[in-house]
Amino acid sequence: MKILVDVMGGDNAPSAHIEASVKAVSELDVDIVLIGDENVIKSELSKYGDYRADRISIVHAPEVISNHEEPVKAVKRKKDASVVVAAHMLKNGEGDAMLSMGNTGALLTAALLIVGRIKGIQRPALGAILPTAKGPKLLIDAGANTNCKPENLVQFAMMGDVYMRNIYNIDSPAVGLVSNGEEEGKGDDLTKKTHTRMKDMPFNFIGNIEGRDIMEGNSDVMVCDGFVGNVILKTIEGMGHMIGDMIKDMFSQTIRTKLGALFVMNSIKDFKKKMDYREYGGAPLLGCRRPVIKGHGSSDALAVYCAIKQAKMFVATDVIDGISKKLAACDLTKGAEEDNV
Amino acid sequence: MKILVDVMGGDNAPSAHIEASVKAVSELDVDIVLIGDENVIKSELSKYGDYRADRISIVHAPEVISNHEEPVKAVKRKKDASVVVAAHMLKNGEGDAMLSMGNTGALLTAALLIVGRIKGIQRPALGAILPTAKGPKLLIDAGANTNCKPENLVQFAMMGDVYMRNIYNIDSPAVGLVSNGEEEGKGDDLTKKTHTRMKDMPFNFIGNIEGRDIMEGNSDVMVCDGFVGNVILKTIEGMGHMIGDMIKDMFSQTIRTKLGALFVMNSIKDFKKKMDYREYGGAPLLGCRRPVIKGHGSSDALAVYCAIKQAKMFVATDVIDGISKKLAACDLTKGAEEDNV
Repeated sequence: MKILVDVMGGDNAPSAHIEASVKAVSELDVDIVLIGDENVIKSELSKYGDYRADRISIVHAPEVISNHEEPVKAVKRKKDASVVVAAHMLKNGEGDAMLSMGNTGALLTAALLIVGRIKGIQRPALGAILPTAKGPKLLIDAGANTNCKPENLVQFAMMGDVYMRNIYNIDSPAVGLVSNGEEEGKGDDLTKKTHTRMKDMPFNFIGNIEGRDIMEGNSDVMVCDGFVGNVILKTIEGMGHMIGDMIKDMFSQTIRTKLGALFVMNSIKDFKKKMDYREYGGAPLLGCRRPVIKGHGSSDALAVYCAIKQAKMFVATDVIDGISKKLAACDLTKGAEEDNV
Repeated sequence: MKILVDVMGGDNAPSAHIEASVKAVSELDVDIVLIGDENVIKSELSKYGDYRADRISIVHAPEVISNHEEPVKAVKRKKDASVVVAAHMLKNGEGDAMLSMGNTGALLTAALLIVGRIKGIQRPALGAILPTAKGPKLLIDAGANTNCKPENLVQFAMMGDVYMRNIYNIDSPAVGLVSNGEEEGKGDDLTKKTHTRMKDMPFNFIGNIEGRDIMEGNSDVMVCDGFVGNVILKTIEGMGHMIGDMIKDMFSQTIRTKLGALFVMNSIKDFKKKMDYREYGGAPLLGCRRPVIKGHGSSDALAVYCAIKQAKMFVATDVIDGISKKLAACDLTKGAEEDNV
């Protein structure tokens, strides 16, 4: 299995990406193609004397799409950008999955325009793995689509169902629809119409869930449009930072509290590990013809390593074939005439 | 000044409400009308031998609207429900502000149908006070309106500006628009159109803010539609609970960690106090002709007391007159033709 890694994007590029790739080829039984500036990659690789060079190859792609560039323009103009080259390779079968920590918009654009959608999927969506009280759960769409129709959300649910079955071995993932109240009648126009349609679908729809249910983790798949998903994801991130800072302050105030910290050191480490997004890998882009993963921009080597592991699972459990089959089992035409929100 | 307190709604009704009212009349220089079942109220009051009976009066309103009732129907049918009686009294000038911890929908309905809107305000909105890293900030709309137009959001911003000026003495409150990216081009149709309109308004619009900015507290007023606001508010609540539980677990694992807890006890108390929503009072409903406050359903006596204090400020600083004047200063017709989202 060959994983394509765009080494040019992200806060810690390319060193974290290359460190993770060197570790992955020796531990995960995968081959890796490092895509980016060849000289930079070679110089980074030279730091590792004894790496499995037989499993790592390099493809020269010197252009970079920065976070400030307009994605569609950049992808169309910069033919030698690492993310564009990776997408072409993925499409042509020169790799089994791709991973990028760079500009999210550029990755989404390259995935849509170059890799293409699964037949029947109207809009691919980003899934974010959240560290809930009951373990990792999927929020979909976490930011790819801002204006959605009910059918899009039904498809997100369906894709999330397949992902959680295959990657986390959950028999019948509980699918919740994010709304402003648990009752069926609650919601904006989009969620109300989506609720009605979801009841007839071949997945375990448990109804509306509220914001406070998200981190409780009672739903394996939490469905919303990408605007709401992005706001949820970033609200959780922001609150995590704030509370992390407060806890740090709490323990560093006096000698007395510093002493207290020593006593709970192991528990703090456990707590941090539980909340550590890095362990969960990146955000799978579901609905494309081939596996695409968006790693967090601030990923370090551990996060990239976990995302490579996730990419391997994505391929090995054949999520994409699962989505195609699930799609064939859903009658999405039912209720479609009411889709205009 | 006379505050109308609906004592029949909320998890701790009526005891918390009456305890808070007894305290408020002795400390805050306000009169209070307790609205609910007279016998229940009298029996509760009898527990306080020495309260300022001259400042407390009772209005008998025996009916209750539970959390499971359909708000509009319930408000129209139950003429003797405490929230309905309170709203009529507020409208008729028999009180200066009203406070309810009960069914949110019923309170919103009573406020809209009975108290009425400020002339020119299309939709009153709920403001939630969030305990951010930079102190209390206002999220508006926190749940009153699920399907909004740009003009609604512009009015929410305007009302939030007045509230934060008056209640928190902020000279020129920074107004942020919640979106899925900081750049002007980011957002769904609603936020994009709202962004354009906000630039011309007489308040300090600082542009789009993201979910991660919410708890950082760089905006005094954070504007969104009520669907998104409800999801944000409840996500924050849920995450707060989860982390609170985790911290409790962290300290109660072993004798060693319990010992550690003793060392940081004071810091934990400070931390809890900072995150304590009770201190901030309830959620003001902005845009009605008279001051209406929604207290949290789980309010205890401290929370109700703080909400009474807040109601007093709401009246004393004349927020409603401020909103009318601000509205007169805004040319809301500009760009209104593009309001169809």
